[in-house]
Order: sequence, then C-alpha cells, then structure tokens
Amino acid sequence: MATDNFSVHLISLNDIREAEERISKHIHRTPVFTSRQADEKAGRRLFFKAENLQKTGSFKVRGALNAVLKGKEENAGWNGVVTHSSGNHGQALSFASSIAGIPGYVVVPEMAPQVKKDAIRGYGAHLIECGPKTVDRYETCALLQKEKNLEVIPSSDHVDVIAGQGTIATEFLEEVPDLDAILVSVSGGGMAAGVCVAAKSIKPDIKVYLVTPKGKGLEECLRAGQRLWTGPPQYLDTIADGIKLRHCGFITTQILIDLAEKEVFDMDDDDMIAAMKFSFEKMKLVIEPAAGATVAAAFSDKFQKLDSSLENIGVVLCGGNLDIEQLPW
Amino acid sequence: MATDNFSVHLISLNDIREAEERISKHIHRTPVFTSRQADEKAGRRLFFKAENLQKTGSFKVRGALNAVLKGKEENAGWNGVVTHSSGNHGQALSFASSIAGIPGYVVVPEMAPQVKKDAIRGYGAHLIECGPKTVDRYETCALLQKEKNLEVIPSSDHVDVIAGQGTIATEFLEEVPDLDAILVSVSGGGMAAGVCVAAKSIKPDIKVYLVTPKGKGLEECLRAGQRLWTGPPQYLDTIADGIKLRHCGFITTQILIDLAEKEVFDMDDDDMIAAMKFSFEKMKLVIEPAAGATVAAAFSDKFQKLDSSLENIGVVLCGGNLDIEQLPW
Repeated sequence: MATDNFSVHLISLNDIREAEERISKHIHRTPVFTSRQADEKAGRRLFFKAENLQKTGSFKVRGALNAVLKGKEENAGWNGVVTHSSGNHGQALSFASSIAGIPGYVVVPEMAPQVKKDAIRGYGAHLIECGPKTVDRYETCALLQKEKNLEVIPSSDHVDVIAGQGTIATEFLEEVPDLDAILVSVSGGGMAAGVCVAAKSIKPDIKVYLVTPKGKGLEECLRAGQRLWTGPPQYLDTIADGIKLRHCGFITTQILIDLAEKEVFDMDDDDMIAAMKFSFEKMKLVIEPAAGATVAAAFSDKFQKLDSSLENIGVVLCGGNLDIEQLPW
Repeated sequence: MATDNFSVHLISLNDIREAEERISKHIHRTPVFTSRQADEKAGRRLFFKAENLQKTGSFKVRGALNAVLKGKEENAGWNGVVTHSSGNHGQALSFASSIAGIPGYVVVPEMAPQVKKDAIRGYGAHLIECGPKTVDRYETCALLQKEKNLEVIPSSDHVDVIAGQGTIATEFLEEVPDLDAILVSVSGGGMAAGVCVAAKSIKPDIKVYLVTPKGKGLEECLRAGQRLWTGPPQYLDTIADGIKLRHCGFITTQILIDLAEKEVFDMDDDDMIAAMKFSFEKMKLVIEPAAGATVAAAFSDKFQKLDSSLENIGVVLCGGNLDIEQLPW
C-alpha cells in the first residue's frame, strides 16, 4: 500500500479518512475553481480549492473540528477546550466547540481588532482577553487549562489537527485526480503537513510545494533536514497574518522535511497583494493575504521554471478573512 | 402542461431548454451558496446563485451566447454581430462571438474606463469607440450594422437573449427544487423575464420578485399592466451600473407584467453597499452593486413582511464586475 511509506509519521492516510468521516457533515466540501486567465499567467492549468468559502472563512475549521470531536469521542469527561488565537484558528475552535456541544475558550490579546473578537464570540466560545505580549497568551491559556481542567487545542502541532487539515487534499484529489503538484502555504505547518500526508499517500508521485512569507527560513530547515528555529515563537513582518508565525511545529516540520519539495516559495507583500487583486477582479473571490501568497507562487517566475511535466497544479486558497474596509491596495 | 399558461409569450420553457443545451458546455454551471448568517438576517433560508462566478463575470454571457450560437445555426451566412455596451453585455458578446467563431463588434463610449475596454477586447471582439451621448451609441451601432451587414444583439429585449438568461432558473431549480421565491434584479429586464418564464413554467406556484434601483418606476408599470416609460433611453442615478437603464424592453416588460409579483423592491445605494459588504465579508464573494441590490432586498424590512410560507428564497447574484480599486465604501 502506498501509505506504508509514510507510516513512520504520527499520522497516516487512515487518520485523515477518519477525520473526513467525522467532520464532513459539519463543514463545506469546498468547490474547486479554474480560470483561463490564471492558466495563462501561470503557463499551466491551475485548480483552486476555495477554502475561503469554508465555514468560519478558512480551512482551520477542519483541524479544530476533528480534534474536538475525536477528543470528545475518546474522553467523555472533557470539560472543554481552550486555545489562544486572535485569528482563523480562534474562530474555528469556537465553531468546533459549539458543534461538539462542549465549552470553548479562546484567549485573545485585548488589543485585537473588535471584528475578530466578535467573530470568535459569534460562533459561541468564551472570549478571554490577555495582555499584548506573546508570552501573555501562552500563560493565560495555561492558567485557564489548569483552573478549568480544559484540553488545549493548538493551531497546528497536534496530530488530530493535522489529520483534519489533510482532508483538504483528499477532497481535492477526488475532484481533480490528475493533479501533478499542490501549492500550500505554511505558518505552523498543520495544513501543509496534512496535505503532504494525504496527497503523497494517495499519489506518491505528486509534489507538494510550500509557500511562506519572506524571512521564515523554511527552505533552510528542509535542506538541513531539521528545525533550525530556536527560542520563543516569533512573528514575521508580513501582511499575511494567517501565516505570520515564523516557526513551524515539531510534528509538522518532520513531516514537511520528509514529504514536501525542498524548494520553498517565499513571497513578499507586493506579490501577495497583486495576487489578491487578481483573485478579487478575475475570480470574484475574496481571499486573505495568506491565500494570495499561494496564488502569487503559482504566478511566480520561479514556479514557471519548474519542469513542464507538472501540468495540473492545485492551489489551496486557505482563507478569506480580512478587513474589507482596509484592503491593502 | 404547466408551460401552456405561458405560451402566449414569444418564448417558452422549451426555448430555454434548447438554450441550455446550446450554451452549457461553454459556460459554468454556477454554484449555489448558503450562509447561516444571511439566513439569520433574512429570517428565511436563502440560496445564492453565484453568477458573479460565471464566465465574463456575469450572467450576461448566457443570453449573448444563446443568441449568437442560435443565430449562427440558422443563418450560415452571418457576417458577424454587433452591440453597444461598455458593461457586462459587451464582455459577454465579445466572448460569445469568439466561441461562435464569427466577428464581434462592441461599441463603447470613448470615455469608458480603460479596464472595461480591455476586458471587452480581451475576449476577442473589435472595440469601436463612439462619442459620449446615448444617441452616439445607437447611431454608431446602426452604422456598423449597415456597413458590415452585421446582426445586432441587444442586451435584453431579444427572445434568444431572454431564453439564454432563463437558464439561470432552470439550473437553480434543479439544484434547489424547493425554492418558494426568486429575487432577481432588473435593468432592461432580460434576466428577469427569462427567470420568470423558466421558473413559472417549471413551478407555477413559485413567486418571482423584482429588484431595481430607486426611481425606475417598474412597480407602477406592473400595476398598470403597461409600459409607462416614454422617450429615449435614460439612466438612473445609482451606483449599480449593471441595472442603471431606466426603461425595460417591450418583450421583457410584457413578460414581467404577466408573471412577476407586483411588489417591486427598489433599493438605494446605501442598501446595496451594505449588502455588498456582507457578501465580501461573510460570504467571501465579490459582487457588483446590481447583485448587492438583490441581497439587500432579501434583507429588507419589506421582504420580512412577506408571507412566512415563503421559506426558501433564491437570490440571483447577477455579476461581480466592479473596480476593486474604487470600492464604494
């Protein structure tokens, strides 16, 4: 079986199939779009998996929901779940805890935009505000966990989260079996790792290319075969708030080292903005900068230099959550 | 047969079925989206037919393509087609003439935005510039017709155009057979008339509600049972350039009088802008003001007062062509 190659990892295609069964009735099977004009720009045939149209506006709901539902199945006594995130994972966990019918707590810096706080509350979770420093989030989350005996569901480095995100690729390959490669953006690496395990298990020849903001240093890690990041979490200077975390996780990095292509596409803000404008204007899809990064990678000179045998390219539009009053152009 | 009631019109469900066969392989079968948040705002279940994701960015391609392909089938000697439009119909006719492999000419005022001219040229038609007055368009179009022996394909008041637009409703009702009503915007009335004939033929109890900018006076015409507009074409003062034509056509008005509900939803710019923002933010769909008008109608107090037996409401998102550098908020 093709999956045997990848069984060294903590997750397998089987976990992803189980995730699919667990979450599919609660989420959208997102459509795949094509665009003649995008194909012309890329010089290949592009297929866009529209996770911006997913529940909560991003793919994050897949992983959060799988982790929460699986945890609840296996631990009837769960008191609730907690995470820290002012972004897409916060909304996703809020939604997931509502679906699972257990209390959800999301720790958010007090200074986060009101619109993000409202979105998190809107899906039903308790919003807990904390101080502005990165360490404040971790501390507040840990305190809550202890005080209320909650389970922490991190945004990426968790096997059930990764398995949930992998369902992007199982759906994608069912819809477009001829994909030769998939472009996926990377923050903590949960989506990319899930996509790698699913795609390479189903189709060992497929290539998964990773997309990041400039300055992350992921390619160096992949080539060195190890995590080169040290110290506490840091954020990159990028408009793409969905992928601004500099360090990938421990589980995720190992999967990416083993399964992803070594060439990483690192995009700057201008590339992302141009790609977002293309999506808004030509595809009529609202996407956030992290999704713009992936479109930009598909349009890049570097991508055009790849082997011409890569004809059908999957592009994951990871989310569409952004402030439409403050578009970056 | 249900269609018998409507056979007094120049088009029947059969024409629309034939249009579907003729055009379906060249266009998208657009997806239908739902939104929990939209349902909450409307107090009913809404289904959004995403014609903003249609080829050329609007539904107009359905009618233009049907008219051009049917015309070519029946008249082997056609020299080409011509229309005047700086908007969605211009792009649609350009696309349609390319698909049909016959010359297309689109008359556009010289002062029209470059982006619209580029879009029309991009699909392959000859762009012919004219002066700024409304009469200039008609004259230039008539001159071209005569000089090159072309067929004029108007944007609305043409049976094959109306039949093409009707395919929106046949697809919509296949996807969501339980629709109790459809909301559709009206400019010349081609889309609304096509939707009326298709929907009422398939499901005589369904209600079709029309949506316009303020000042059109359509409800007065429907209640009087006749066209009350006189004089040359006029444009309404609205941000919705897709529905700014004040007068409906002759064929279209008669169909609307016979088949549409008498209550017309007339929306102002602020309503449309708020609805556009909802679509961008919550549904991640780029829609133009004319589509915003229909969403606004679904959210309006007036709509909430309609009979509660109308549970499942179809909302046609007619297009997504707008200048994203100049969003109206």
